[in-house]
Amino acid sequence: MRTTRIVLARRPEGLPDVSCFETHNCDEADLPPLRPGQILVAVEHLSLDPYMRARMSDRKSYKPPVALGSVMPGEAVARILLSEHPSLKRHECVIAHTGWQSHAIVDGGSVRRLPDLGLPSTAFLGVLGMPGLTAYSGLTEIGRVQPGETLVVAAATGPVGSMVGQIARMKGARVVGIAGGETKCKALIEQLGFDSAVDHRSASFAADLGAACPNGIDVYFESVGGNVFNTVLPHLNPFARVPVCGLISQWTTNREPSSPLAVDLLRATLDKSLSIRGFVVGEFAERYRQTFEQTVSSWLRDGSIVALEHSVDGLENAPDAFVDLLQGRNIGKVVVNVA
Amino acid sequence: MRTTRIVLARRPEGLPDVSCFETHNCDEADLPPLRPGQILVAVEHLSLDPYMRARMSDRKSYKPPVALGSVMPGEAVARILLSEHPSLKRHECVIAHTGWQSHAIVDGGSVRRLPDLGLPSTAFLGVLGMPGLTAYSGLTEIGRVQPGETLVVAAATGPVGSMVGQIARMKGARVVGIAGGETKCKALIEQLGFDSAVDHRSASFAADLGAACPNGIDVYFESVGGNVFNTVLPHLNPFARVPVCGLISQWTTNREPSSPLAVDLLRATLDKSLSIRGFVVGEFAERYRQTFEQTVSSWLRDGSIVALEHSVDGLENAPDAFVDLLQGRNIGKVVVNVA
Repeated sequence: MRTTRIVLARRPEGLPDVSCFETHNCDEADLPPLRPGQILVAVEHLSLDPYMRARMSDRKSYKPPVALGSVMPGEAVARILLSEHPSLKRHECVIAHTGWQSHAIVDGGSVRRLPDLGLPSTAFLGVLGMPGLTAYSGLTEIGRVQPGETLVVAAATGPVGSMVGQIARMKGARVVGIAGGETKCKALIEQLGFDSAVDHRSASFAADLGAACPNGIDVYFESVGGNVFNTVLPHLNPFARVPVCGLISQWTTNREPSSPLAVDLLRATLDKSLSIRGFVVGEFAERYRQTFEQTVSSWLRDGSIVALEHSVDGLENAPDAFVDLLQGRNIGKVVVNVA
Repeated sequence: MRTTRIVLARRPEGLPDVSCFETHNCDEADLPPLRPGQILVAVEHLSLDPYMRARMSDRKSYKPPVALGSVMPGEAVARILLSEHPSLKRHECVIAHTGWQSHAIVDGGSVRRLPDLGLPSTAFLGVLGMPGLTAYSGLTEIGRVQPGETLVVAAATGPVGSMVGQIARMKGARVVGIAGGETKCKALIEQLGFDSAVDHRSASFAADLGAACPNGIDVYFESVGGNVFNTVLPHLNPFARVPVCGLISQWTTNREPSSPLAVDLLRATLDKSLSIRGFVVGEFAERYRQTFEQTVSSWLRDGSIVALEHSVDGLENAPDAFVDLLQGRNIGKVVVNVA
């Protein structure tokens, strides 16, 4: 059996291209033997997420950089081929940090058996996985959206944004999504039930956002930064909460000379008693995982929320799909079907 | 009897000078008669505070601007001369928003009788007043400093900063104060018991701050902004909390071209899961006032904390004293003795 892995070949400046990646093939026989506690898995579905771009840079963010020549990191739904772990059996399906590869040897203690919630396994990479939990915990812990408040979310068709909006809508908030392009804005209204959608690529973006938020903004769920953030800032209400779970624009746009200074942001923070709070899902994962999975899986089953997914076939297409993701060419959670 | 009031004559750009103020004298006989519920008070001690500068500008901050020709706002310890309020009596001492004047007619419902806690009345303008409550509530609610953590506070000899540091020290934190000049730094160590003091006017400020915080910074209590903030930012630890109660540098320094952009601040916020939270004491005043007064007054009486005060005689000297305050020429709470 042939195994494939994709490694980081070159560190990008700004937006990566496919030359940043290299595909290596080898024979399964070349894999080292399992040590006690380890399992060998075959990846079925690989998750692609914006955070991976941060780890391609030679600069510590909230996690250390990926070493050149190392497998690109990533979470996957995978099936166990061999197990030296006492409670994990062959053929069981797990969620594991396998990275971008067809097969991986991982510690059995680091994986999670796929919960049996009657939903497709890829949901555990999106709405029921890390992005969904990011939305759920960030909104519960930091956003604390109240009925009647206005919530704005950036990258609103993405797996985090779409969950933020849909959960906030169920909590009785007015929900405004920001997305790039008409197709996405249409999806926000028609498929995800947002109250309003604003296209950040439109020349009238600032005016459109103001019109969509006649009572200002009480929660802005940030994953974009750049011009989107700058446009949102003046509309924030006193005591607004700004959970920050990502800043994807830093990888795709140049700094604009008109960007506000840090001191302007501090001033707005003081003038309006804003809360700005960065977070990574790991901080809240243990505390929220169980409630989150129970709540969101029942919403998914009864159709209260919808999962948008963009799937790509073949591990060899992961680099292209990832570059597209950073440019917002997908709608919904990007999953690479590997097996 | 002659009465005196100081009005806003001109809006300043940056640092105000005394020409921004005008002193008006009139006869007590010219004061309007009291309406039911009102009291006439004679100001004994007027508080001067940095927030007054914000209100001199024609730009809404968290409160509206003072109108040109209106009395400068301010809190004072005052004695009742006449009362048309059912439960306030002549000769009683109150804390009232009188503004910069010798006499004021105010609604009895808006004043607070001076609590009898066995302490000098001016304490209720400083450590036991708005600045002390700002420190106490901001530290409790936002800073949440823990034993063994490192807390850094700017404008550390000021009434907010000195209380933040002293309270944090009693909670078991390592406390580092930032202040301008050697005299203040000496006062931080010798009078206020800070663990370390760093002079932001020194050429070695950045290195000194790093040396004073070998384990990084867990709480940065911000009231300054500008270069002080920029220097603190890289030292913030993951999950650091940054309560922002003022930004005095915006009134006294020009923007430096090297200032970080808002996006850099957001990036640090994301990379380190920072909490940045603006606040005004009013948000927490009701919830904390009682515990605060009981706790802090007992600390003051038993000498666990010290109140530094800088007093100036004569209402006519308030403008000069205020300009000095904005330039950090005082050590401790600035009070104008009026009566």
